[in-house]
Amino acid sequence: MPNGDCLFCQIISGEIPATKVYEDDKILAILDIHPVNPGHTLVMPKKHFTHLLETDEETATAMILATKKIALGVINGLNLDAFNLELNNGRIAGQIVPHLHWHIVPRMSDDGLQHWPGKSYRAGEAEEIAKKIRENIR
Amino acid sequence: MPNGDCLFCQIISGEIPATKVYEDDKILAILDIHPVNPGHTLVMPKKHFTHLLETDEETATAMILATKKIALGVINGLNLDAFNLELNNGRIAGQIVPHLHWHIVPRMSDDGLQHWPGKSYRAGEAEEIAKKIRENIR
Repeated sequence: MPNGDCLFCQIISGEIPATKVYEDDKILAILDIHPVNPGHTLVMPKKHFTHLLETDEETATAMILATKKIALGVINGLNLDAFNLELNNGRIAGQIVPHLHWHIVPRMSDDGLQHWPGKSYRAGEAEEIAKKIRENIR
Repeated sequence: MPNGDCLFCQIISGEIPATKVYEDDKILAILDIHPVNPGHTLVMPKKHFTHLLETDEETATAMILATKKIALGVINGLNLDAFNLELNNGRIAGQIVPHLHWHIVPRMSDDGLQHWPGKSYRAGEAEEIAKKIRENIR
C-alpha cells in the first residue's frame, strides 16, 4: 500500500521526480540526490515497507535479484569494479527515509572513504553474545 | 566448490574454528572476530563466490532470506532495534576476505559511528550518469 506521507512512495507514484536508473513491477532504483560518490544508487521495493525485517519473501528476493543487475550496471556504466551495498535499518542506523532502500555506493581507489574500525571481545564474550543471538533465530 | 586457500571456506569446512550463530545447508553466519559493535555478524554462502555479482539466483535468494532471520535474532538477542547490513564488494570497497559475506552491524544510539557524507551533482550530471548506468543494466 502506498503511504501518502512517504517521500519514496511519492517518487514511486510519480508525484515527486527522481533520476531513475531501473524499474520493474516490484522495484525502483534512483540516483541518491546527495551521492557519497557519483552513481550512488538507491534500490527500493515499490510496496511500502519500513524495514527489511518487515518484508515478505517475494519482496526480499526481488530486491536482491534486481540489485545484482543494477549494481552490475553501475560498475560497468562507470568503468569501476567495486561497490558497497548498504542498508540502514532503523533511525539509529542512519535510516532517513522510512521506506526500505539499499544504497549501492560505487567505489574508487582514491575516494578516501574510511570503514568503521573493529574492536576485540574479552575472553568468553563472543560465545555469550552468540548464544543470545542463536536463541533468538527462528 | 571449496577453495583451499580461502579462510571462510576453511571455517565452513570446520578446519578453522569460529563462533557460529546460524547454519543451514546453504548459509553460515559467524561473529566477526573484530566487531564494529558486539554481535557484529558475518553471513556467507557455503558455496565459494567472491562477489555478489557472481552468485546464482539460488544463492543470492538464500543469503537475503537467511539474513532476515539472522538479523532479527541479532537485534532481539541483544535488545536493540537497528542494524546496518553492509557488503563490501571488491578490495577497493574494503573487502578483505575474497569469499562473499555480508556484515550485520548492530547499532546503538550512543555508538558514535558516522556515515559517509553526501555530495551534490552539478546541473545535468545526474542524468548523464543515470544514462550510463541504464545502458549497462541487462
